[in-house]
Amino acid sequence: LDYSPSEIVVCPGPKDVVFKICVTMLNPKSRRNRLVTFAPTYESFENLPILLTGKPPIVLETDAHFLPDPNQLADLLNQDDTVALIVLNSPNNPTGAVYPDSLLRELAEIIGKHEQICILSDEVYRTIIYDGIDHVSIASFLPAQTLIVGGMSKEVSGTGLRLGFVAGPEAVMGAIANVEGNTSSCVNLPTQKGYAHFLRKDTDLRLRYQIRDALYSRRETLTNRFSKLVTDAVWERPAGAFYFFPDMSFYCGHRTPKGKPINTDEALALYLIESANVVTVPGSKFQRPGHLRFSYAVGLETINLGIERMAEALDQLSA
Amino acid sequence: LDYSPSEIVVCPGPKDVVFKICVTMLNPKSRRNRLVTFAPTYESFENLPILLTGKPPIVLETDAHFLPDPNQLADLLNQDDTVALIVLNSPNNPTGAVYPDSLLRELAEIIGKHEQICILSDEVYRTIIYDGIDHVSIASFLPAQTLIVGGMSKEVSGTGLRLGFVAGPEAVMGAIANVEGNTSSCVNLPTQKGYAHFLRKDTDLRLRYQIRDALYSRRETLTNRFSKLVTDAVWERPAGAFYFFPDMSFYCGHRTPKGKPINTDEALALYLIESANVVTVPGSKFQRPGHLRFSYAVGLETINLGIERMAEALDQLSA
Repeated sequence: LDYSPSEIVVCPGPKDVVFKICVTMLNPKSRRNRLVTFAPTYESFENLPILLTGKPPIVLETDAHFLPDPNQLADLLNQDDTVALIVLNSPNNPTGAVYPDSLLRELAEIIGKHEQICILSDEVYRTIIYDGIDHVSIASFLPAQTLIVGGMSKEVSGTGLRLGFVAGPEAVMGAIANVEGNTSSCVNLPTQKGYAHFLRKDTDLRLRYQIRDALYSRRETLTNRFSKLVTDAVWERPAGAFYFFPDMSFYCGHRTPKGKPINTDEALALYLIESANVVTVPGSKFQRPGHLRFSYAVGLETINLGIERMAEALDQLSA
Repeated sequence: LDYSPSEIVVCPGPKDVVFKICVTMLNPKSRRNRLVTFAPTYESFENLPILLTGKPPIVLETDAHFLPDPNQLADLLNQDDTVALIVLNSPNNPTGAVYPDSLLRELAEIIGKHEQICILSDEVYRTIIYDGIDHVSIASFLPAQTLIVGGMSKEVSGTGLRLGFVAGPEAVMGAIANVEGNTSSCVNLPTQKGYAHFLRKDTDLRLRYQIRDALYSRRETLTNRFSKLVTDAVWERPAGAFYFFPDMSFYCGHRTPKGKPINTDEALALYLIESANVVTVPGSKFQRPGHLRFSYAVGLETINLGIERMAEALDQLSA
């Protein structure tokens, strides 16, 4: 994939990029102004359409591996002419799922039949995929309708530096650049210079793959320890990103040692903070209740200690 | 004026703050969703309402000193129930005008009669006022309806670091914070830390007044040289900010040495770039054609050289 400068817009952070895309594509006065996203989905994809158009997103379910069903999408697009933007996110936050080539090709074929629709392909975790799988963008199959969203901070562990970009067809990029020019104007200068310096050095992605490899051993530690100590959770081994998203429904419906009922993933997350000092994000924030999202972008010792403490806390729950 | 953390939101740059305020206050589906601004006005205040609501701003004129007419505003607000937001900008970009206390008090009284309307008081140049005048915010007279917009880069010559803030009533700030949380998330970390360090050191504004004093001598040099060398312009001495906004209408309607007609401020600005290497912004960008905006945030030598070259270039124009 190759983009010229007029096909790229840079904004302060990928979340900000998503906002600028939504401002550009989701016109409150157009009939075609709805956003489609697949559950579990990132919170912004729920909030931004409501903020900008008053309408919630259309949320489609995924299968047991957190993968979209192409037929379901095809049916929706054939019946509904209000869709403007479809969000895909692989590697996925919160599940760590990576969409296979063949799935992306199928989705591209379906969406390609509806030329007015754009894909917002959130690929901020593109350099963090394990087990020898290569990242593929749906833009390889459908460049004219794909807006690739990327960011620097996940790739280089530069949390807090806030730089994101979008690459796609020139006409859409021109409109987004106009929005950006009237809003954030630009990314702060030190961040621009720092990343430019980095990109000139890491042309072969070597430094970024070192980060991936460090995350790989964390995933291994996390899933090994988890499978031994937290036996009543149901989960998939994440193929990318640095999140782990087990189904913890078993533990909901239990009671804490003090007798407080834990009925929701939110209550469970709070209990784990209070009793084990482990921070998770409840799945209901991603439209998938009963799950918890763990981030393993922390050191191995922290992962080991966290899981031990969590397992102890979960063992103390009673039915 | 004193604000608690829940009455302040920080965003990547004042322009971005303005955008977030407009997203929050200018609901495309509300009847009351129009923005009022005074000409000459900054470009974003024209573009953002169109982007968000499809409706242009209501632009009111100012007098010969670039000051708003309170009676005209009172008439508008009594007749028109669609106004949501009124932009005030003192010290002013592009004119350098500073609104007197008495005017702000009058405006506050008028706007205070319409409780649903907020003031977006753009005060990014608040520390750059000359001739012993103190900055006054309209929030001192109407805190419940005023959103003060400020920024760091103008105050400390930190161009490119992108940090702005808004301070105002908690309910509105909560809504803006929600928007910010779903968009930019936060200002990049090095900028936050850098400015925090600066603010802890410059509690008495001493460093910021040093910058003002340096700009003062540039204003003096600029206006002295300009009055001697560019005799057919009509202008006001700017009382604040670092802009100078002369009426250059006299030179429009002339011809370049090569016979090219100069009919607009845009053509004049282009001629000055090409023939004198002097960059200005045409007044028509601020809804005030015939003027040019000069920035004097450059060294004294550059100011002297620029005016000399410009004077030569203007002398070569023929009727």
